[in-house]
Amino acid sequence: MTQRVFNFSPGPATLPEEVLRRAAQEMLDWHGSGMSVMEMSHRGKEFVAIHAHAERLLRDLLGVPEHYKVLFLQGGAIGENAIVPMNLLRGHASVDIVDTGEWSLKTIQETRKYAHVNIAASSAAKRYTCIPPRQGWRLDPDAAYVHICSNETIGGVQYHFTPDVGAVPLVADMSSDFMSRPIDVSKFGLIYAGAQKNLGPAGVTIVIVREDLLGHALPITPSAFDYGLQAQADSMLNTPPTWAIYMVGLVLDWIQDQGGLAAMERRNKEKAGLLYQYLEGNRFYANPVAPADRSLMNVPFTLRDPALDDAFLKGAQAAGLVQLKGHRSVGGMRASIYNAMSLEGVSALVAYMKGFEARHG
Amino acid sequence: MTQRVFNFSPGPATLPEEVLRRAAQEMLDWHGSGMSVMEMSHRGKEFVAIHAHAERLLRDLLGVPEHYKVLFLQGGAIGENAIVPMNLLRGHASVDIVDTGEWSLKTIQETRKYAHVNIAASSAAKRYTCIPPRQGWRLDPDAAYVHICSNETIGGVQYHFTPDVGAVPLVADMSSDFMSRPIDVSKFGLIYAGAQKNLGPAGVTIVIVREDLLGHALPITPSAFDYGLQAQADSMLNTPPTWAIYMVGLVLDWIQDQGGLAAMERRNKEKAGLLYQYLEGNRFYANPVAPADRSLMNVPFTLRDPALDDAFLKGAQAAGLVQLKGHRSVGGMRASIYNAMSLEGVSALVAYMKGFEARHG
Repeated sequence: MTQRVFNFSPGPATLPEEVLRRAAQEMLDWHGSGMSVMEMSHRGKEFVAIHAHAERLLRDLLGVPEHYKVLFLQGGAIGENAIVPMNLLRGHASVDIVDTGEWSLKTIQETRKYAHVNIAASSAAKRYTCIPPRQGWRLDPDAAYVHICSNETIGGVQYHFTPDVGAVPLVADMSSDFMSRPIDVSKFGLIYAGAQKNLGPAGVTIVIVREDLLGHALPITPSAFDYGLQAQADSMLNTPPTWAIYMVGLVLDWIQDQGGLAAMERRNKEKAGLLYQYLEGNRFYANPVAPADRSLMNVPFTLRDPALDDAFLKGAQAAGLVQLKGHRSVGGMRASIYNAMSLEGVSALVAYMKGFEARHG
Repeated sequence: MTQRVFNFSPGPATLPEEVLRRAAQEMLDWHGSGMSVMEMSHRGKEFVAIHAHAERLLRDLLGVPEHYKVLFLQGGAIGENAIVPMNLLRGHASVDIVDTGEWSLKTIQETRKYAHVNIAASSAAKRYTCIPPRQGWRLDPDAAYVHICSNETIGGVQYHFTPDVGAVPLVADMSSDFMSRPIDVSKFGLIYAGAQKNLGPAGVTIVIVREDLLGHALPITPSAFDYGLQAQADSMLNTPPTWAIYMVGLVLDWIQDQGGLAAMERRNKEKAGLLYQYLEGNRFYANPVAPADRSLMNVPFTLRDPALDDAFLKGAQAAGLVQLKGHRSVGGMRASIYNAMSLEGVSALVAYMKGFEARHG
């Protein structure tokens, strides 16, 4: 008998149970093919259909304009941190990056291998508890692009606006909030996201890129990571991560069944609202993030007395609430509540937190 | 009711049915964790155990010496074609490559982005129907390394010896015959292999590298592809392709249950023997490869009359024998018979070929 837990992992993360059931059912024989998806040639008609289905659904749900390519690649966001400048410098010497936390810092470190980095704004002085307001950014009109991280999983801050950066392409690492809400893709030059938060298993990275930015990769760019070559090859210049792409397709089916991205956003706001409402003004738990910039995906919180952390985690585990330990760099707790986390799961967490407070507060 | 086919795909390729059944069974709840493997944090104790199990089993079965690191990365062999020189030049200006077909040519093309390439030997003039004999290789003692492709999936040629290249490290792309037979790892500086032939699904690449070769990556190397950094981080510098690593572990369990690599080699020789014996001297079908260099993994063959190709493929499909079409660059047919292809499957193919010959020969 299967006893599922409520899994608050920051990623890889919980997946919809109906998606997992379907994957298990189709494991030995996908749609009468006599093969598992894992066994299919990526050039065979079965997998080509699976790939096309995932791409079409992603385009439809997100409203990706025709002049953008959608790529399914490997390497995750840390890989893309290097691959983006390899592809997008286009003769420019400098990149603007907005520093909002740990993930921005990784981007800065990788980008410096290929270009000068101008830190256009930073919330480091505020210990990464907010998004630097757009009016304070010092942008370079000659930058190759402006890079933001739309949601920082560790600090728990998220952009609730799309910054206007003029004619310079806006690039966003959306790994941890991609497909969690509607966005206007046309405001971005490039979006990238590892799938393992809201969209599927680890091992596939989605890149959405405006066509006019393609074809300028540095000569040192590996062909497997040359966006222009991959766009020409329909992401099949090398063998794609076929199972991960299939799973993304199943999750996209599920998102569509739930009502699409507007419904996802409503659900995500409702879930996060439950937690933030409870944390607001609480004297036993605290969340340091500026209210306007709080993440709907990752809710870090601390206990007034860190000596209670272990007891909190142990009790949570016993209640079937797992992976709540905060990142080692900030300590405390973190509840990651991506698309597939149910309202029931968040309610169970809040109930547990209230009970723990009542016993220890 | 599941009706499985015999799948001769060159990769991604057929997997053991018992492995697929176990993956389906464990889909919603791995070992009482209440989570799918796809949902687990890569830093949680459950996945750390899955990862360690796969590595330990791989080391045991292959006999990997202590002073070699085993990495589980992303990007496939085409990715590694670039990532290997990024990591392994160590101040050298030139790389020796032995050209045995399509995969060697891809390696040459990628390596040229970072170093001078000396083609130490080539079977191009023989239309890639043999492995160039070791005594004819023109090796450069100052080369960073000597690169070979141990099995060419398209031409169907395979090394049945490990070349002695002196003190220069030997690097092998073993994507299509890795874990199909015992090898002496100590004769290699580095071995890499995409998993999707003999070892699991697409999306994970195994790199086995001698420790003294680490730590010399070019400054332009993305951190996610810096072998030294990944070795320090136990392949978790970025989120690893967790599901693919889990599947590799299940396939390694299966290899062990079958009797290990010596048993795999016996099975693979028996299967290939059936096909080559039938093709030998046949006047209706032909295989062009020099007998000493024939691949145990990929058996290309042509029909005397190419006008019959479509009828052959259609009839095969109807008999449950799929993915037999040869690569577009050589035409004809190709039977890929990796570890997980059963003797029963190869026997069924030979029976079908005999029947087709009887009807059309």
